[in-house]
Amino acid sequence: MFGYAGRILRVNLTDDKIRIESPDENFYRRYMGGWGFIAYYLLRELESGADPLSPVNKLIVALGPITGVPIAGSGRNAVGGKSPLTGGFGASEGGGFFGAELKKAGFDCIIIEGRAEKPVYLWIHDGEAEIRDAKHIWGMYIADSQRIIREELKDNLIRTMQIGPGGENLVRYACVINDLKHAAGRTGMGAVMGSKRLKAIAVRGHGEVKVADPDKVRKLAEAMVDWASAKPRGAGGVDWGLGTGAWMTAHVLSGNLPTRNFRDGLFPNPEAISAQTIRDTILIRMDSCYACPIRCKKVVKVDEPWKVDPEYGGPEYETLAALGSNCGIDDLKAICKANELCQKYTIDTIGAGATIAFAMECYENGILTREDTGGLDLRFGNAEAMVKLVEMIGRREGIGDLLAEGTRRAAERIGGGAERYAVHVKGQEVPMHEPRLKRALGLGYAVSPTGADHVHNIHDTSFIQKSAWEKVKALGILDQVPLEDLGPNKVRLLIYCTFTAILDNCLLMCGSVPWSYDQKLEILRAVTGWNSTMWELMKLGERVLNMARVFNIREGITADDDWLPDRFFHPQTAGPLSEVAVNPDELKNARRIYYRMMCWDEETGVPSRGKLEELGIGWVAEYLPHP
Amino acid sequence: MFGYAGRILRVNLTDDKIRIESPDENFYRRYMGGWGFIAYYLLRELESGADPLSPVNKLIVALGPITGVPIAGSGRNAVGGKSPLTGGFGASEGGGFFGAELKKAGFDCIIIEGRAEKPVYLWIHDGEAEIRDAKHIWGMYIADSQRIIREELKDNLIRTMQIGPGGENLVRYACVINDLKHAAGRTGMGAVMGSKRLKAIAVRGHGEVKVADPDKVRKLAEAMVDWASAKPRGAGGVDWGLGTGAWMTAHVLSGNLPTRNFRDGLFPNPEAISAQTIRDTILIRMDSCYACPIRCKKVVKVDEPWKVDPEYGGPEYETLAALGSNCGIDDLKAICKANELCQKYTIDTIGAGATIAFAMECYENGILTREDTGGLDLRFGNAEAMVKLVEMIGRREGIGDLLAEGTRRAAERIGGGAERYAVHVKGQEVPMHEPRLKRALGLGYAVSPTGADHVHNIHDTSFIQKSAWEKVKALGILDQVPLEDLGPNKVRLLIYCTFTAILDNCLLMCGSVPWSYDQKLEILRAVTGWNSTMWELMKLGERVLNMARVFNIREGITADDDWLPDRFFHPQTAGPLSEVAVNPDELKNARRIYYRMMCWDEETGVPSRGKLEELGIGWVAEYLPHP
Repeated sequence: MFGYAGRILRVNLTDDKIRIESPDENFYRRYMGGWGFIAYYLLRELESGADPLSPVNKLIVALGPITGVPIAGSGRNAVGGKSPLTGGFGASEGGGFFGAELKKAGFDCIIIEGRAEKPVYLWIHDGEAEIRDAKHIWGMYIADSQRIIREELKDNLIRTMQIGPGGENLVRYACVINDLKHAAGRTGMGAVMGSKRLKAIAVRGHGEVKVADPDKVRKLAEAMVDWASAKPRGAGGVDWGLGTGAWMTAHVLSGNLPTRNFRDGLFPNPEAISAQTIRDTILIRMDSCYACPIRCKKVVKVDEPWKVDPEYGGPEYETLAALGSNCGIDDLKAICKANELCQKYTIDTIGAGATIAFAMECYENGILTREDTGGLDLRFGNAEAMVKLVEMIGRREGIGDLLAEGTRRAAERIGGGAERYAVHVKGQEVPMHEPRLKRALGLGYAVSPTGADHVHNIHDTSFIQKSAWEKVKALGILDQVPLEDLGPNKVRLLIYCTFTAILDNCLLMCGSVPWSYDQKLEILRAVTGWNSTMWELMKLGERVLNMARVFNIREGITADDDWLPDRFFHPQTAGPLSEVAVNPDELKNARRIYYRMMCWDEETGVPSRGKLEELGIGWVAEYLPHP
Repeated sequence: MFGYAGRILRVNLTDDKIRIESPDENFYRRYMGGWGFIAYYLLRELESGADPLSPVNKLIVALGPITGVPIAGSGRNAVGGKSPLTGGFGASEGGGFFGAELKKAGFDCIIIEGRAEKPVYLWIHDGEAEIRDAKHIWGMYIADSQRIIREELKDNLIRTMQIGPGGENLVRYACVINDLKHAAGRTGMGAVMGSKRLKAIAVRGHGEVKVADPDKVRKLAEAMVDWASAKPRGAGGVDWGLGTGAWMTAHVLSGNLPTRNFRDGLFPNPEAISAQTIRDTILIRMDSCYACPIRCKKVVKVDEPWKVDPEYGGPEYETLAALGSNCGIDDLKAICKANELCQKYTIDTIGAGATIAFAMECYENGILTREDTGGLDLRFGNAEAMVKLVEMIGRREGIGDLLAEGTRRAAERIGGGAERYAVHVKGQEVPMHEPRLKRALGLGYAVSPTGADHVHNIHDTSFIQKSAWEKVKALGILDQVPLEDLGPNKVRLLIYCTFTAILDNCLLMCGSVPWSYDQKLEILRAVTGWNSTMWELMKLGERVLNMARVFNIREGITADDDWLPDRFFHPQTAGPLSEVAVNPDELKNARRIYYRMMCWDEETGVPSRGKLEELGIGWVAEYLPHP
C-alpha cells in the first residue's frame, strides 16, 4: 500500500505489551491518517467519560499517507487523545522530522495506552519497538533528554517527540514537541503524555517510503522548490524569509492583534515584535521541516538580558501575540525567552500567553492580589513577571499551579467574577485572531471540536482578497461575502474550508505550503496510486469532523459549549474595534445555520443518522445519545 | 464567458414577444445548463399547479457549457417543462447536431412561453429569432416538415428540433426530436411543444464557440478519437460498431430483459432482436452526434414487409425491448417499423412500447376486448397489431386515443383492475431494466424526480465488475456491495452516481462516452477556464436534484409517489426471476435511508432548509409547503 507503512503500533505502558496491527487498505483510504485515525480509535476504543489524565486515555500519534514522502509540507504528524483542557476531542499537529522518521521506521500510527509505573520512553527503530527506562531523564528540559537518549542509543540522527517538565507536571495545555522546536501545541496532549509517564518517543528508521509514481512525486516536489526559490525573500503571502508575524502593523490597524487579553486594541509599537525586527536583530537562520523548501521557522539567539538557546527555535506569530501584545508586552527578547521556556517545558505558547494575560487582567482588577501571585506585580506589560510566570507554570510553583489548569478552571477556582476574563472556548484558550473582526472565524472558534483553534478554521480577512476567493470558487463558493456577514454564504465558506483543513490534518499536509487543491490531490494520487477526487477528499474532511463531533457529544459536550467567551460580545475598550462586537443573536443564528447546513439538529447540534450513513460511518451513530 | 453564448432567448408565443437575457457568470456556474436551467426557471417562473398542457407551462431548451465544443459527447441538449405525464419536473436529453447549432447561433437556452394562436415554428439564426407561420407543415411527419423548412429558408444545413403528429395531438409521452432521429424521449416534452402549437425550432449559426484553452480541448478531443479508433468494432462496453442492444442473450439469462409487460422472463430468441442481428441484416451505417467519434447510432433500412426509411435512424436497446420483448415480439423488422413511426410521429418508444404492452396484458386478461381495440387482436406477440397501434396512438385514433394518455391514465379510465398492469412510476412508464434484478435501479426509479428513468440512474449490475467499482472508488465508495443489497452502502452508491448523472445533464455531456470523472472535469475547465473541482461538480448534481425535488413537492408529488408499481413486488410468472421479487418493506426502508442520506425528511422526503442553504439555493425553500 503506497504511501503507508501499513502497520500500526499499539503500546500498553501498564503491562508493557507491544502489538502491531495491519488494517486493510479501505481502512486507510476511509480514515486516511492524522485526525481520521485519532477520531476512529477514540470513538471505537476509549470508554465514555474517561478522565483524560487517567491511564484509560489513549495517546495517539498518527501520520498520513504523505508523511515522509520527500515533498514540501509532508513533515507533520498529529497527536491526539481525549483533551484534558476540553474533555473532548483532542488533537494537534506538529512539524519537524519526527513524522518522516517514524514512517521510515515502519509505522503509520502509535496508540499508547495505560500508564507506566515509572517514567519510560519508547524506542522505535526499523519495525521494532521497546519500552525503556526514563527515570534518569525525567524532569529534564527536552534538549537535555534528547541528547542523553541519542547518546545512550548511540545514534545522533534519532528523532524525538518529547515532553518537558510542563508535560510531566500535567500542565493542562502542555504540548508535545518534535525535534526540540516543532510543537503540537493545542489541546494538552503533553499532559496526556505526562500522565502516562512517557517522557519521549525516540525513532530511527532506514526504510523507504514507497510511492506509486515516483516521477510524478519528484516533479511535484520540484515545482514547489522552484516556486519557493523564485519567490523574493520577505515578499507577502506566507512570508518566506520571515516566517509568520510579518504583518503586525496591519493587525494593529485592523484591530486584529489581540492586546491585553483581547481587552483593547492599543499597541503603539507593533514593529517591536514583528518578524521583520526579528530578522534584523536576533535571527540566526531560517529552518525548515522535513523536505520543505519554504523554511518558515525562525531560529533566534539572544544573549542578554535573557539568554535564549537557539536549539529551541524562535517565536511564531501566535507566540509573539500571545506572550507579547496579549500581555501588553513589546519586549521582543522577553517574548523569545518565554518562548524558549515554553519549548523547554513543552507548554503551548498560546495557552500560556492567554492564561497569563487572564491572570494579568484579574490582577489589574483586584481579583488576584500580590499575595496571590507570590509578590509578582502582574500588571499588563510586565515582561519580567511574564517570563517568571511561564516557568512557575511549567513547574506548577505558587500561582503557576493554578494557572497550569488553564483559564477556565483557574477562573472557577479564583471566583469573584474572574470568569469574565477567561477567554476560552470549551476550556481551550483563544488563539491570536480577533473574532470581533473575523466573524466566521469566531463562529469557527465556537463550533470547533477542539475548542478555540485557528488551524482548521478560516481567516475570513484573507477572503477580502480576490485571489483567495478565486481559490475557493473551486469549491463552488461563488459569491464574495463581506467580512462582517454571518449569513448562509459565509457559513458555507467556513464549512467547506473546515473540510479542507481537516483534510490537511488527515493527509498530514502542512496548511502553510501554498499547494492548490489540485496539487494536493495530485500528490495523494501520485503517492498512493488511488484515483481519488476532490469529492472523496472533501467527504473525508466532513466524515472526520462528524466523528469528532460525535465523540464530543458522547463526552457530554453540548450545543451550549459551541459558544464564544463573553469578552467578544463587548467592543474593545479602545482601539479600532471600540465600537464593534459580536452580536450574540447573530452568532446564535449563524450557529443554527451551521448546524443545519451540516445536517445536524438545528438546536442540539447532533449529527443526523442519515448524514453519518452518507459519510460511510453509520457505525458512529451508536455512540450518540439517541440512536 | 468561455463555453457559453452568454444569452438566453425568451419567446412568448401568445404575444409574439422575443427577448434576450444575459445572466451573469455566477448564474451559469451555479446552474451550469440543462437540468440546472430547467429546474431554475420552472421554480422561479412557473406558477404552482399549472396544467402542463396549458399556455402557462414553459418549454425550456437548454444547452450546457460544452455544447457545441468539438469534443465527444458534446452533442446533446435538454428539453424541459412541467411534465404532462407526471405533473412534476419534466426533462429529457437528446443528441444530434441541433444543440451545437443553437450554441453557434448565439444562445444557451430558449424559454418558450404561452401558446400560438395558429401553428408556428421558431427560426433562430446568428443571434436573431423570429416566429414563423407553420400552418403548412402542421400535421406532417418530421422529415417532411424539415425539408420544407430548409427549402423555404434556403439553407440545407439548418438543424431542427421538431414534433410530429404525436406531439401535435398531445400524446402524453410525445417526444421532441433533433435532426429526425435524436429523441429527447421522456416526460412528454413533445406534448408540451404541441400544446404551444410550436411545430419546430429551426436553427442556423455561424458563430464560434469560444473556449478558454483551445489546445487543451483539442488534446482531450483527440484522446477520445484515438481511443475510439483503437477499440475493436463489436468489442464490449458501450459496443462501438453495434450501438446499444448487444447483450440481449445475457439480459434474458439474467432475467433483465423486460418481457410481456415485465410479466415473465421467457424470450426464446433474443438474438432475433439484437444489435448483432441488425448489423448482419438491415444496418446500412452507424451514425454519430456532433463531434463524436463513437458512432453508436444505428441507421437501418428495411424494404419488406415493412418499408423503413433510413432517414429516421434505427432502434436503440430501449426500443428493441419496449416494442419487442416487452410486447412479446421478436420480429425485428416490425420493431424497426414501429421505431420509424415513433420518430415520424415523435412518440417516445419506451412510453409507446410500455403502453402497448400494458394494453396487451389487459387484452389477454379480458379487461380490454376486441371491441375496445376496434378489431385488433391485441395478444402479446402480435407484431402487426403493435405497429398498427403505434400509428393509432400517434393519431389518437380509436383505442390509440386512450393509450396516448399513458398507462396510468389509461388504466384509470379502463378500470376493472387494469391498474395492476400499469407499469409506471409517477405516471412515466418504466424503461427496459428490471428492478427485481437491479435493486438500486429500482429504488432509483422510485425516487427519480422524472418518474421511472434509466438515464440518471445506476445499473447496479455493472458494479459487479471490478472496473466499475474501481471507478466509483474515486467518489469514496470503497466497499463492493452485492447486487441484491439495498443497505446504506448501496444507497450511497445510487446517490453519488445520480449526482454524476445529473451533472452530465447539466454540462450536457453524453453519459455513453467513456470519459473518466477527471476528463469531464478537465473538459469543463478547458472550455470555461474555471478552476472547478469534482466537489463543485458533485454539489451541482446534488443542487439540481434538490431543485427538481422541491419543484415536485410544490406540485403535490409526495413520498407515496416514490414507489414502484405493484408488478415488481411479485416474481416473474416464469423465467430467471420466477422466485425473485422486490420486498416492499425493504424498498420502504431503502427509501428512508435514501431520504435521510439526502438530508431530506425521513418520512416525507422534503429537503431540509439547511441542505438547500448548504447547496447555495436557500431561495428554493420558499417553494416548500413548510418554509
